[in-house]
Amino acid sequence: MLHRILSVTTRDVRFPTSQEQHGSDAMHTDPDYSVAYVVIDTDSGLKGFGITFTLGKGTEIVVRAVEALAGLVVGKSLQEIVSDFRGFYRLLTSDSQMRWLGPEKGVIHLATAAVLNAVWDLWARSESKPLWKLLVDMSPKQIVSCIDFRYITDVLTEEEAVEILEKAKEGMQQREEQMLREGYPAYTTSCAWLGYSDEQLRELCTDALKSGWTKFKVKVGADLEDDIRRCRLIRQMIGPENTLMIDANQRWDVGEAISWVTSLAEFKPLWIEEPTCPDDILGHATISKALAPLGIGVATGEQCHNRVMFKQFLQASALQFVQIDSCRLGSVNENLAVLLMAHKFRVPVCPHSGGVGLCELVQHLILFDYISVSASLSNRMCEYVDHLHEHFTSPVVIRDAHYMLPKDPGYSCEMLESSVKRHQYPEGDVWRLNMEK
Amino acid sequence: MLHRILSVTTRDVRFPTSQEQHGSDAMHTDPDYSVAYVVIDTDSGLKGFGITFTLGKGTEIVVRAVEALAGLVVGKSLQEIVSDFRGFYRLLTSDSQMRWLGPEKGVIHLATAAVLNAVWDLWARSESKPLWKLLVDMSPKQIVSCIDFRYITDVLTEEEAVEILEKAKEGMQQREEQMLREGYPAYTTSCAWLGYSDEQLRELCTDALKSGWTKFKVKVGADLEDDIRRCRLIRQMIGPENTLMIDANQRWDVGEAISWVTSLAEFKPLWIEEPTCPDDILGHATISKALAPLGIGVATGEQCHNRVMFKQFLQASALQFVQIDSCRLGSVNENLAVLLMAHKFRVPVCPHSGGVGLCELVQHLILFDYISVSASLSNRMCEYVDHLHEHFTSPVVIRDAHYMLPKDPGYSCEMLESSVKRHQYPEGDVWRLNMEK
Repeated sequence: MLHRILSVTTRDVRFPTSQEQHGSDAMHTDPDYSVAYVVIDTDSGLKGFGITFTLGKGTEIVVRAVEALAGLVVGKSLQEIVSDFRGFYRLLTSDSQMRWLGPEKGVIHLATAAVLNAVWDLWARSESKPLWKLLVDMSPKQIVSCIDFRYITDVLTEEEAVEILEKAKEGMQQREEQMLREGYPAYTTSCAWLGYSDEQLRELCTDALKSGWTKFKVKVGADLEDDIRRCRLIRQMIGPENTLMIDANQRWDVGEAISWVTSLAEFKPLWIEEPTCPDDILGHATISKALAPLGIGVATGEQCHNRVMFKQFLQASALQFVQIDSCRLGSVNENLAVLLMAHKFRVPVCPHSGGVGLCELVQHLILFDYISVSASLSNRMCEYVDHLHEHFTSPVVIRDAHYMLPKDPGYSCEMLESSVKRHQYPEGDVWRLNMEK
Repeated sequence: MLHRILSVTTRDVRFPTSQEQHGSDAMHTDPDYSVAYVVIDTDSGLKGFGITFTLGKGTEIVVRAVEALAGLVVGKSLQEIVSDFRGFYRLLTSDSQMRWLGPEKGVIHLATAAVLNAVWDLWARSESKPLWKLLVDMSPKQIVSCIDFRYITDVLTEEEAVEILEKAKEGMQQREEQMLREGYPAYTTSCAWLGYSDEQLRELCTDALKSGWTKFKVKVGADLEDDIRRCRLIRQMIGPENTLMIDANQRWDVGEAISWVTSLAEFKPLWIEEPTCPDDILGHATISKALAPLGIGVATGEQCHNRVMFKQFLQASALQFVQIDSCRLGSVNENLAVLLMAHKFRVPVCPHSGGVGLCELVQHLILFDYISVSASLSNRMCEYVDHLHEHFTSPVVIRDAHYMLPKDPGYSCEMLESSVKRHQYPEGDVWRLNMEK
């Protein structure tokens, strides 16, 4: 079956999360978690679903960008695409006229991610496998044929990538079985958004400990005294054995980041996440160097816009935890490149998640990382945030602070049609009724 | 007069340049030079005009992004904006929901540039001065109040910036007079686009030499043998004393760039422009180091997306020529930051130009650089491309290979309404008639 693509449609779907300060941090004080939601229709009747994540305003711009890319996709068959997936990736990211808008960054790359996520979903469905299993079952040569090595060959060649994947075949079967049994370890960000009250923090933390969570992330960066109070509170609640991470969401300049985090060192955070501008590789390197003696690592990646940036973060020892994002990088294709480079530099990958659907997607990638690339769980964990899962047809399953393996075919990003309809912006009931108020 | 902003309108204006291979290079084989054209209307009747440059397809996405930003601008007065221009810049670039789409990169930053260019145009018109003169007449404190120093304080503080500007006051008057007399030195890219035939090259080169041009840029990167032939031809035409630059438009990986350019070293290019991915700071540093013994510098910047990237290029000695862009960086505000950082690192600024309107805009910035910042013309020159100027109300004036000083009030980006109407996409005559063919 060829599965020829008949149409690529996109919708602007927004959730009014800002009303309750879910997702609030030092730079994003009132996000309305949103997606550009892509549906691919084929002549076989099989569909592919994809998303990219946004924070509300401007989602319509991403929708427009998806529409512009759709012209490059409609008429092609799934067969054609996956038989030269590298070429197809290049087609979308290097269009002679549209690459000026990026290249491979910002709105146009978010749109590329949405479209390619839908293509991967379609591919996995056509094989009746969850995406992680599709990847795990692919040969090393097939995997690398999906990666565009342009601009990264000084750090990772196609041959090296194949070698890494060949080597990881040892013990693959056992790791897959282990994952099926235990799931992949997670940490929670749901307890300590910046906009929550102390009472809320205490309550959520107590509940989380009861549910088996051992790793907690706290948002910081707006006010130092406030951060000290909140970190002390959380550290007291979770005790010295559990893990604490802090996240500044790009709030500081380089010098400020070093002094601020030094003031929070007594609470023993494992990492400081996004201490400064996501583009500042050399800045992150300076911060990493300064914080290393305190035992605090630097984590970043959710706004690291492509493989070339990740390459440099690794080259410059500018991060100690790689936080891939399923919707900002160019889908699975570009994430594969980053997983392989991180492995080469022996830096653990701890995916960014949360938002809408990011947990659903990224679990597939980190499972592939463990089973087929890194073969290690040391210092590794996947972010988890516990809202908006109810809008997906195959929501993540968390048990005892682990991601349980997704079993449904695809990339887990199909949304309930009823949810999409209600939340479509601006015509869905949720928004129409809000505006009428 | 407050000049309260009543509306911000945007139009998608495209020129069918791909039909004659103007602007063709190794990565952009068929650009249709285009702009998102912004007009600000105020209650005083005064208008501001701004553009950002694009390559055709996708301009409609930038238009959409301008519309999204317009909501932050309408209702404000020019007075309000310029009395806290740093705050206004931050408002546009750090909107809590929209910054996810960048931040400060890609489509949303191109749109920011277009809007802010129109605001600067409005400001200069309200003072009845060409933009360069508005800048030259501002006090150092006023200049720095327009710059967002976030994320660059590790390299340049506000105090240092003031100091640089104070120091450059010496001889300012003479430099301004010199510029009024002589104009600013330019080089030409019009002779050697990649899609041109040898005959075309020869003819254009002969004409350019006759008109006084001494500095020539050649597009390379598609085919080595072809590049050797073309560089030999141009070097023969211009002789050993004139200056040759080569431009690969991001065609190579790091290793490839070094070996390719080494093969062209015999033609003595002053610089290799955009040898690889515009995001690859460390890659450019490696290339710079390898080519230094050959006397070839690295130039880049037209796709360097913000001040934080330029900061690192300078920190890493990754470029020897800073090519600012008037429409990719966040307008004059962010360009001021880059000019000051370049001066601190003693790296000459040679602006990117061409496209539609880029010459018109960037001449103002490089004049300010000479008169008020660098005070030097050594190794400095501004790109010039000789098409599409006829669509502007105050087109650039070139005499004896120098930019003559613009005298009309504003930022020189007002377009002829008749040109806009004819080229509006897709409804303008130029496109409608093309499609009917």
